[in-house]
Amino acid sequence: MNATYGSSMKPVINRIYMNHPGKLCLHTITTRPWPVETAAKKYAAAGIGGISVWREALAGRDLVKIGRMLGEEGLEVVSLVRGGFFPDTDAGKRRAAIEENKRALEEAAALTAPLLVLVCGADPRQSPEDSRKQIFDGILALIPHAETLGVKLGIEPLHPMYADTRSAINTLKQATDMAIRSDSDRVGVVVDVYHLWWDPNLEPEIARCGQSGKLFAFHISDWKVPTADLLNDREIMGRGCIPVPRIRKWVEAAGFRDYLEVEIFSNRYWEGDQDKYLSEIIEAYKKHS
Amino acid sequence: MNATYGSSMKPVINRIYMNHPGKLCLHTITTRPWPVETAAKKYAAAGIGGISVWREALAGRDLVKIGRMLGEEGLEVVSLVRGGFFPDTDAGKRRAAIEENKRALEEAAALTAPLLVLVCGADPRQSPEDSRKQIFDGILALIPHAETLGVKLGIEPLHPMYADTRSAINTLKQATDMAIRSDSDRVGVVVDVYHLWWDPNLEPEIARCGQSGKLFAFHISDWKVPTADLLNDREIMGRGCIPVPRIRKWVEAAGFRDYLEVEIFSNRYWEGDQDKYLSEIIEAYKKHS
Repeated sequence: MNATYGSSMKPVINRIYMNHPGKLCLHTITTRPWPVETAAKKYAAAGIGGISVWREALAGRDLVKIGRMLGEEGLEVVSLVRGGFFPDTDAGKRRAAIEENKRALEEAAALTAPLLVLVCGADPRQSPEDSRKQIFDGILALIPHAETLGVKLGIEPLHPMYADTRSAINTLKQATDMAIRSDSDRVGVVVDVYHLWWDPNLEPEIARCGQSGKLFAFHISDWKVPTADLLNDREIMGRGCIPVPRIRKWVEAAGFRDYLEVEIFSNRYWEGDQDKYLSEIIEAYKKHS
Repeated sequence: MNATYGSSMKPVINRIYMNHPGKLCLHTITTRPWPVETAAKKYAAAGIGGISVWREALAGRDLVKIGRMLGEEGLEVVSLVRGGFFPDTDAGKRRAAIEENKRALEEAAALTAPLLVLVCGADPRQSPEDSRKQIFDGILALIPHAETLGVKLGIEPLHPMYADTRSAINTLKQATDMAIRSDSDRVGVVVDVYHLWWDPNLEPEIARCGQSGKLFAFHISDWKVPTADLLNDREIMGRGCIPVPRIRKWVEAAGFRDYLEVEIFSNRYWEGDQDKYLSEIIEAYKKHS
């Protein structure tokens, strides 16, 4: 009986730890040249299980139809990317940002995406502390709408090189603290190795984030050496200096069992053959993630 | 008597808090197109009190002569920039790096520079933890030589965007912890607003660094919005998003009374008129530092 039980458990355990494509999710921006319809067909044909959809890929589309199409392709919608950008010295613009985020939540619901990823924003005309207060106020204002729609909010801490305009949340500790302070199970954190790999407290902070029930998503890519562009020069896993498998172990030790989401911005790869690039990503996912 | 005492104290207090050029120090790399001899004459003529000399500016020079020349111009040599780059997967190269740093300490002594600034290095082929261990070992190996020569070692934490190859020390906390762990009053920290402004713990960490007697130097510049180049696109104070006067207050509240050192790397400014640029820096130092 024990032997039977053991062998019947094995495939489950293997499925959790093995890098089969079903556990892989791609962000549409990774293969930016492909329209969302092409991306869906290509990802599904490659056996990829999940898709995170960027709002820029949805311009002019019927979202309910796109959500249905993704389901028919056998893809699980993992998240909508991205809301946020709450801070502004002008109160009217802060109110407008909250309205824009409500629309993003509605888009996520229409797509059947359970999570809206937040790039929280920063206004360089004010102190980081002021921007952080406005981010927190913005998130609080969205919680009722998020609850009604059944969509979660994921605070993504961004690399400190984006602290001027993209996010005043630059460490995992800040993001977890803010998610806990929100006092809502709708609010959690998105851990992205590209933004956080350098942090000397990453391992204990990942553990704390998971223990707090706040580890909502996990993004992977690599840091190119040398990096020529602050925005669009990311690498495929295994080709840069981020210890992705090590960080993945920390994330799984913290209880995370969801998709590994590949999010690569790269002018170089976008200029190349997207089919070849996709197969390189899947290979790297199997060997270096 | 009290009134006399009070008025005799005033100029001293004012000299500490006023931004007269005598408290200003320039890094030679800031005006990179000028040879060190030109830089010395121009800085002195502008009433600047200090100079930090980059090793690249010393190629082919007699260091004792240069040190004497700087003194004759009325400039105090604040630091030699830069040593460091300790980590390497190859043990032979780590030993070579230590020898190179001993030469840098000797150059500092010849120049009458009391401080060698350390850009600690990182090897992307190994984990940040391994690089940090090698940095610590390298610093420990230098302490006897630093004591003999009377030169201090300043650990400069670098912005996380340089964590791949330039430094695995990316927060003030890490630098202060390492300086304390060295158990030597020769080892301290260089606080540079460009590298640290985004850190949510900056104010308490500056206080702790000062209380520990480890705050050896203070570098200023600004973060350009947007930044086009990871290395050479810094701004003059007041033209970017770093709250320099606020951070300066924290540094002075921590007991720091030494030079404000302007260290700007900028392809844009290096291409322009260096005399105009120098006067803009002095103006910005008076108004935005």
